[in-house]
Amino acid sequence: MQRAAALVRRGCGPRTPGSWGRNQSSVAAEASAVLKVRPERSRRERILTLESMNPQVKAVEYAVRGPIVLKAGEIELELQRGIKKPFTEVIRANIGDAQAMGQQPITFLRQVMALCTYPNLLDSPSFPEDAKKRARRILQACGGNSLGSYSASQGVNCIREDVAAYITRRDGGVPADPDNIYLTTGASDGISTILKILVSGGGKSRTGVMIPIPQYPLYSAVISELDAIQVNYYLDEENCWALNVNELRRAVQEAKDHCDPKVLCIINPGNPTGQVQSRKCIEDVIHFAWEEKLFLLADEVYQDNVYSPDCRFHSFKKVLYEMGPEYSSNVELASFHSTSKGYMGECGYRGGYMEVVNLHPEIKGQLVKLLSVRLCPPVSGQAAMDIVVNPPVPGEESFEQFSREKESVLGNLAKKAKLTEDLFNQVPGIHCNPLQGAMYAFPRIFLPAKAVEAAQAHQMAPDMFYCMKLLEETGICVVPGSGFGQREGTYHFRMTILPPVEKLKTVLQKVKDFHINFLEKYA
Amino acid sequence: MQRAAALVRRGCGPRTPGSWGRNQSSVAAEASAVLKVRPERSRRERILTLESMNPQVKAVEYAVRGPIVLKAGEIELELQRGIKKPFTEVIRANIGDAQAMGQQPITFLRQVMALCTYPNLLDSPSFPEDAKKRARRILQACGGNSLGSYSASQGVNCIREDVAAYITRRDGGVPADPDNIYLTTGASDGISTILKILVSGGGKSRTGVMIPIPQYPLYSAVISELDAIQVNYYLDEENCWALNVNELRRAVQEAKDHCDPKVLCIINPGNPTGQVQSRKCIEDVIHFAWEEKLFLLADEVYQDNVYSPDCRFHSFKKVLYEMGPEYSSNVELASFHSTSKGYMGECGYRGGYMEVVNLHPEIKGQLVKLLSVRLCPPVSGQAAMDIVVNPPVPGEESFEQFSREKESVLGNLAKKAKLTEDLFNQVPGIHCNPLQGAMYAFPRIFLPAKAVEAAQAHQMAPDMFYCMKLLEETGICVVPGSGFGQREGTYHFRMTILPPVEKLKTVLQKVKDFHINFLEKYA
Repeated sequence: MQRAAALVRRGCGPRTPGSWGRNQSSVAAEASAVLKVRPERSRRERILTLESMNPQVKAVEYAVRGPIVLKAGEIELELQRGIKKPFTEVIRANIGDAQAMGQQPITFLRQVMALCTYPNLLDSPSFPEDAKKRARRILQACGGNSLGSYSASQGVNCIREDVAAYITRRDGGVPADPDNIYLTTGASDGISTILKILVSGGGKSRTGVMIPIPQYPLYSAVISELDAIQVNYYLDEENCWALNVNELRRAVQEAKDHCDPKVLCIINPGNPTGQVQSRKCIEDVIHFAWEEKLFLLADEVYQDNVYSPDCRFHSFKKVLYEMGPEYSSNVELASFHSTSKGYMGECGYRGGYMEVVNLHPEIKGQLVKLLSVRLCPPVSGQAAMDIVVNPPVPGEESFEQFSREKESVLGNLAKKAKLTEDLFNQVPGIHCNPLQGAMYAFPRIFLPAKAVEAAQAHQMAPDMFYCMKLLEETGICVVPGSGFGQREGTYHFRMTILPPVEKLKTVLQKVKDFHINFLEKYA
Repeated sequence: MQRAAALVRRGCGPRTPGSWGRNQSSVAAEASAVLKVRPERSRRERILTLESMNPQVKAVEYAVRGPIVLKAGEIELELQRGIKKPFTEVIRANIGDAQAMGQQPITFLRQVMALCTYPNLLDSPSFPEDAKKRARRILQACGGNSLGSYSASQGVNCIREDVAAYITRRDGGVPADPDNIYLTTGASDGISTILKILVSGGGKSRTGVMIPIPQYPLYSAVISELDAIQVNYYLDEENCWALNVNELRRAVQEAKDHCDPKVLCIINPGNPTGQVQSRKCIEDVIHFAWEEKLFLLADEVYQDNVYSPDCRFHSFKKVLYEMGPEYSSNVELASFHSTSKGYMGECGYRGGYMEVVNLHPEIKGQLVKLLSVRLCPPVSGQAAMDIVVNPPVPGEESFEQFSREKESVLGNLAKKAKLTEDLFNQVPGIHCNPLQGAMYAFPRIFLPAKAVEAAQAHQMAPDMFYCMKLLEETGICVVPGSGFGQREGTYHFRMTILPPVEKLKTVLQKVKDFHINFLEKYA
């Protein structure tokens, strides 16, 4: 009785007509009503359940951190608890997380970041002058000269200017306008923001978004969140994962029956597939987008990660401008870069930018409005982006060390790319295309029928079954190809090439041994 | 002809059947087709326009960075260009951005951040041992001991443990579980993420989200993005902006005719209204949520910003537990905190956390999955959050300076809260409720009929018209009440109390003079 009486004293709940929909003639009745009702309530269903939740969110899949990674976490805990395994550590080759794999941060970048974080250090003799110069410039552009202030929603002005200058240099003089630069919380944020604005319509006029298969699953996840229509175009595995415009045509024509294809997403260099698009291929894609009135999204976060001597990175922006005004003044393009990849691998700072081309001025306003709801990207990430686009130049104090560190990271990645390709291709039942760029191998694995049956018995995709076994037997965590999409009946996995060379060799040898045993077991 | 021929040589575009839907019998025809088509294409409509864009995004409004702030930016540029104005600087009192207003960062926080950023400094004698201890602990919990690695999607483990320990201390021993803590990119990210999962259904069963009016416009913006139904409940201005449960009842009953009210959002201390909820009021609200089966969102980012001696912050979590198991084991609650407010004002790092209570285990999995698509919150922001919840303790080297800096910020805010209330209430035609907490005044302004007509003639909300004039005549940038919502026919504006005391006095005097002139002009 006590609590009910208390409720009544507080004059809440029961006292108000209509709130209980039963006899409220007297305080006593209310009190007993409270008591009668509560037990029933305490057994009630939760409000937020798998059944009641947002179905689009429920449909989201993200394999890079999916069940296999949860399993890896469990195994790590078991190892910590001293449970014996055929291995002593889990090797997380599932994600492109360079510094987690032991890559050292670029000294200059961290020096500038430290100076921006704690400006007292600007008086310290142990920091180089060029780092102090960068830090002062960034701080002067921040409210109250502090990384702790909100920036403009589009990002700090002088950093957007540096990004524009970087793009102009990168693209051999093709102009870039700071007003077209939006600093983002990693590239993922830029990609999902522009897609959020692009998606509209219902039924057959719902926006279709064309994505490569295999894809980076951010795309399928955001498409699902936005309830847009995913339109798959398949990369040509027999041709080093090249993008074939005829396949784009097939995909868009078929899609037109059930949606309004409005966006074409390209990942170059490819993730998970590692191909680097030729200039001709990019020209073909741009012409196709122009022809089919598609908004182009160019995910170029691996632009610094090109290893094959016969490959070069060409930005969509540059090729677009070189194709002449009838393209460069018409085709709408958003391209993306990030602090997380390249040679710096600063994933944790969540820095990135988006450049837009031919975006309607009214849409720019809408974009800024939408970004302003989240206030601004992390200013520390913006500062990290600034150092990536505005590194030391010849003659500056830090240039030599910076260059050495950069070359060492990229040189090692190139070595590891070749090493991985060669070793995988020595294994019967594994075929690996050249790793022309990015930081992953995506080998095809040929699985025996018995293995496929065993997987089905476990209600797993065959390559998920394979990767789970690999994890359990070797501690190596890779992502099944089914998490990226692949042609029906083909199986793959994605593995980063980020472990240090010697460790990578061990990893590859373990995968080889595992694979051979696996083939024997399910022969 | 040249470009067309080139296209043909590349074998793209015209060569493929079906892609042009016109005569493709010969290369020449194709080439000329290209030429014929291009001019028409070059005059074509853009793909992404106000008409074709996502209508929910188009409907989003965010006044805190809306037209008035854009205008402020224009005026700043004019001042820089030397254009004469009746003032020399724009004072951005529109947003709670403490460090932009000159507040100095908390030394200890920045020391730890700098040590995490550039670990070489761990050997420097110029940093205190307790800061080094914090930094080592954070780095040991990061992949590769680096802020540059991705963290777990839910956030760094030891930081989630520190947050849980902080909540337990704050709530006088009510237990908090690190597994219920999600580190976020500022509080905004947590709020929009949980709402994204909560919203479902169509037509009359579309999720209704109850928000206070006046509200912080993040809520209306996210509701619009998600195409959910906004259900307004009005705070009681005559009663210091108190929340009245009878008003919640009215709102939910009316909402049930056209949607499924499923979520109740509370902002305590209030933004923009500055009220601090009594314990009794919180108990009433929790009982109401329990009664009406509503998922509770408690926005508690101003929990350290309580100034009225007769007010105290009570967390919803604590009150929920004190109401007994029938509530604490049933009511689903998500509460939010941030590094951006309080005494630290570290907005730029975008640090924050969400604590969930009674969240269904399957939904926790869905939440982690959804968060993993964006990989992780900025690790630097997570580190900042750690220092907020794990500050120096008595006996530690930095305790005294930390306490001094913290007290100084909060003491000044309390002074400024009182000062602002008193000065506004001396002005005829302005009424200002006590600023019990948070960092804003939200005075009511009584506008003459002529001013309202003049505003209508400019197609502006009357308080927008007032704020625009204030900005143009004094350089003071505040946000009209219409951007937060208010009772029909009442007018307000939101102004931060963050400027330094002397500057704030000048600002308030200028507003007073402006207001009196305004009343005379439109009498």
